[in-house]
Amino acid sequence: MTKIGCSVEEIDTPALLIDLDVMERNIETMAERFRGMPSDLRPHVKTHKTPIIAHKQIEAGAIGVTCAKLGEAEVMAEAGIRSLLIANQIVGEPKVTRLMGLARHSDVIVAVEDSVNVRHLAEKAREKGVKLGVLIEVDVGNNRTGTLPGEPSLELAREVQKYSSLNLKGVMGYEGFCQFIPDMATKRVKTTEAMNKLVSSAHLLEGQGIEVEIVSGGGTGTHMITGNHPGVTEVEAGSYVVMDARYSTLEGLEDFGKALTVLSTVMSTSHEGKVICDAGLKTLTFEFGNPPIKGRPEMSYQRPNEEHGHIDVESGASVKLGEKIEIIPIHCCTNTNLYDAFHCIRDGHLEAIWRIQGRGRSQ
Amino acid sequence: MTKIGCSVEEIDTPALLIDLDVMERNIETMAERFRGMPSDLRPHVKTHKTPIIAHKQIEAGAIGVTCAKLGEAEVMAEAGIRSLLIANQIVGEPKVTRLMGLARHSDVIVAVEDSVNVRHLAEKAREKGVKLGVLIEVDVGNNRTGTLPGEPSLELAREVQKYSSLNLKGVMGYEGFCQFIPDMATKRVKTTEAMNKLVSSAHLLEGQGIEVEIVSGGGTGTHMITGNHPGVTEVEAGSYVVMDARYSTLEGLEDFGKALTVLSTVMSTSHEGKVICDAGLKTLTFEFGNPPIKGRPEMSYQRPNEEHGHIDVESGASVKLGEKIEIIPIHCCTNTNLYDAFHCIRDGHLEAIWRIQGRGRSQ
Repeated sequence: MTKIGCSVEEIDTPALLIDLDVMERNIETMAERFRGMPSDLRPHVKTHKTPIIAHKQIEAGAIGVTCAKLGEAEVMAEAGIRSLLIANQIVGEPKVTRLMGLARHSDVIVAVEDSVNVRHLAEKAREKGVKLGVLIEVDVGNNRTGTLPGEPSLELAREVQKYSSLNLKGVMGYEGFCQFIPDMATKRVKTTEAMNKLVSSAHLLEGQGIEVEIVSGGGTGTHMITGNHPGVTEVEAGSYVVMDARYSTLEGLEDFGKALTVLSTVMSTSHEGKVICDAGLKTLTFEFGNPPIKGRPEMSYQRPNEEHGHIDVESGASVKLGEKIEIIPIHCCTNTNLYDAFHCIRDGHLEAIWRIQGRGRSQ
Repeated sequence: MTKIGCSVEEIDTPALLIDLDVMERNIETMAERFRGMPSDLRPHVKTHKTPIIAHKQIEAGAIGVTCAKLGEAEVMAEAGIRSLLIANQIVGEPKVTRLMGLARHSDVIVAVEDSVNVRHLAEKAREKGVKLGVLIEVDVGNNRTGTLPGEPSLELAREVQKYSSLNLKGVMGYEGFCQFIPDMATKRVKTTEAMNKLVSSAHLLEGQGIEVEIVSGGGTGTHMITGNHPGVTEVEAGSYVVMDARYSTLEGLEDFGKALTVLSTVMSTSHEGKVICDAGLKTLTFEFGNPPIKGRPEMSYQRPNEEHGHIDVESGASVKLGEKIEIIPIHCCTNTNLYDAFHCIRDGHLEAIWRIQGRGRSQ
């Protein structure tokens, strides 16, 4: 039914749309910003999980990709992308074995925070005859994963150095807690503090004669600070590529457009003052609140059921049964993970359908 | 890596597990309850989206299945299930056309609430040479979709009767707002009120000489009331088959076991008093709160990130890196929709992997 070349109106719903012009501008805008910053961009693909978008980011200047999961990295490697950072711990026998398979076909780097895990990785790498890149993950205040900055990071780096099957590439630290600080001055102070912890850990290693090639951190919300922080070599921003309703409220991201929407149909108009659309908990995500509706200030998404959305409509406004609306995701990364494909729009028409090859690849 | 016959411990994570013994008992328990009630069971497959489970429910006595979406119904029809109720409005040209294709291969019934939609369905059915079953959807207080009870329902029924391509089968009304009323006495009052609206609408139609074969309502939380309500002919309960942490708190559902869990790995133990597991927003759902951890009272899931879960651990308790835990979904239906497959467990070992064929089929 949904044919390449058809108009947006003809696409069945719920469907996940990308406005290609907006996405391409976002890629170019971020690439341009990084041409003017000391660090490089290694975009996080957890946002789109789609190789063709990753390739576009690399063509624009990115040095490789960042992945959250081994499964995502495998998808990217299959699509010919060689330089992969898995910004996460790889724990457990099945994944460690798979990782070595991946390492044969790509330049993969993983994060480590634990000496037992380091030994596991090292022994498997030796057994499989591969050399595995690792970064010491430093907890820069995110209170999730990572060693403490300073001495504990140095200690773990020395552990890594014991194994000839591991290649210590440097350090990483994610200042996730800074991404959504609304005030830019406060964000700058907090992000700088966090990155100081990371860079000082890098310096500590270097002072001991340990080469530190990579110092990785940052996200879309902090890239303008982290990317300029002396000593940081690469930034892991991901969401900028399509944005979402939450990121779009942030200072410093005004140049990035909202490329992602969920096309939905008004499927019930039997109530006064509200309509029901066909996008709910299985086709939108809500962890950061209700998503807005594009270009329809008279409509307000109030609450989801599994397959329905309750939308209040201002009195006097007319919304018809069967009408299509575009809902702007409140969190692009989780919203993408609900769909098998992007419907790619240019000038109001369907230009392509891209499979979201990494959807559900959470192992 | 994950081979049939392996132990639960060997399954890679995150993975969605079904305890088969528990699920089979749930199917039998509900079938037994309906043998003692005047109405039939037509289980809602939005919970599992998986044909083999639907077939087991039918083998145990269910008269067919209920679906939320056309796509789910197509999956069930492909697997040989003929009797399909889509308890939802089918709106828009692409879906109405698909629906008629489905109607050629199954006995499909859809809900209607709007005369324009009724005409659309009727004309397409005539054009395609099929006879489509419809139920008048009555709003019994759920305030989502449906005509008002009484006269408006009768009016729409008369609209339906104008078209020889439509087969008016009866009425349906979902008392969703009653499902989670904690106190059974209050639930009984509210559910009975709602079902009175539905059954009195059916009687109004019958009084006008309109045959009413089906009066459909109910869910897992109200089946013991709705299933016994005079005049109700079938009940749409779905979640009972695997249950979840929220349903399990309800009075009257003590006989149903929690069959569904998410197997997750402890991937970081670098903090005092907490650990990080590998199941977050992309592998668990949180609309009704944080999910509990099976058999581990010392662990408490505090908050998710995209691919991480922050779990508090009681002081003195020992949790090891790489340890596997089972998390009980707080909402089975949305949680299932995140996974491509169920890993089916019996006696601690993997007996089968069932593809969740309806996952993501929200169109």
